[in-house]
Amino acid sequence: MKIKVVESVFQANDAVAGENRALADKAGVLMVNLMSAPGSGKTTLLERTLVELGPKNCAVLVGDLQTVRDAERLGVSGSQVVQINTGRGCHLSAAQVAQGLSELDLTGLSYLFIENVGNMVCPASFDLGEHKRVALLSVPEGDDKVAKYWTLFQGADVILLSKIDLLGALDFDPERVRDDLSKINTHAPLLEISAKSGQGFHNWLDWLRKEHYTPTE
Amino acid sequence: MKIKVVESVFQANDAVAGENRALADKAGVLMVNLMSAPGSGKTTLLERTLVELGPKNCAVLVGDLQTVRDAERLGVSGSQVVQINTGRGCHLSAAQVAQGLSELDLTGLSYLFIENVGNMVCPASFDLGEHKRVALLSVPEGDDKVAKYWTLFQGADVILLSKIDLLGALDFDPERVRDDLSKINTHAPLLEISAKSGQGFHNWLDWLRKEHYTPTE
Repeated sequence: MKIKVVESVFQANDAVAGENRALADKAGVLMVNLMSAPGSGKTTLLERTLVELGPKNCAVLVGDLQTVRDAERLGVSGSQVVQINTGRGCHLSAAQVAQGLSELDLTGLSYLFIENVGNMVCPASFDLGEHKRVALLSVPEGDDKVAKYWTLFQGADVILLSKIDLLGALDFDPERVRDDLSKINTHAPLLEISAKSGQGFHNWLDWLRKEHYTPTE
Repeated sequence: MKIKVVESVFQANDAVAGENRALADKAGVLMVNLMSAPGSGKTTLLERTLVELGPKNCAVLVGDLQTVRDAERLGVSGSQVVQINTGRGCHLSAAQVAQGLSELDLTGLSYLFIENVGNMVCPASFDLGEHKRVALLSVPEGDDKVAKYWTLFQGADVILLSKIDLLGALDFDPERVRDDLSKINTHAPLLEISAKSGQGFHNWLDWLRKEHYTPTE
């Protein structure tokens, strides 16, 4: 009985996720779902990304339990930004993204970023309709997190090792991350970046440009 | 119908939590639930805490999706440590803690620490039977997290601002944290500590000693 309830939740979510993806496909928009622990640098990454890709090419849906702080930070760029408050909800759902999509004008957009709720566990289980999944791991969180929070890293299409400007100041071994990743995900590149210093940032931009969805006639 | 299912989950959890608390009360053990984002320093905090309070006075239940890394680190102290792997579970449940308790010898213990799964959202909704709730916020996570993850900080009995040895290297305003806290939680002290440098650590130890449960005859 319980299992049935859980299954139906995922089924309902997946149906809406499919509609979200179809909508983005039709508009030629690459939908990218950013997931990480709180404070890994998702918003700072996006601040710089919007500027680099061109604010008018990008839109953002931002998930948070409460506050509009991230939307305010990202809105400075001039990109379209919609804040989704989840209350006590620990992840975004496809239905919330659908509602956010209805508030955006997709015309002329190339990229739609979804900044998920800061949480390394629950968001990984919910398809939002994204084309690509990005997992961030920041240096201060420690080099032991890939094996611990394996569902997130197993399902990611690219993994960003963020805040690498702090590598010298903290005990963190990138090789340990690579070793753990090699056991669960061999297709996703690991990119070392700092949105603050700009180090390695071009690799992230190159990845986005390469992955950009091109509609077939 | 859905609401009924959710309610019964919480009711079942609360019943077991009550039994856990009664067990700890009987043994004169203060049960402390540590909650935070991944990588906020829960394990490093405990490593030092066990040594300072005396390893034989303390036991730890460690929750992680996978791996026994934290239990291995904490076991070095000589304290009793039980690792609980939750698989895809985003928080510890009272039933998991009950199982962990059954594997511990509580005789002579003063403190039982529960290191919850690294997650600022879900753990805050589940009573494990603890007497006190500790919320950690590490400096690298940013000074905007209290208002965003308000359920965790609202329900905490003490808040630890951890990794303050990094205050000089990062943009972080402790006043912003105090200001956000003043709106949602006026009873819990905010202690600034570094488990690495030891700065402020005595305040945390003093708090624990003060809160230690003394059984009434």
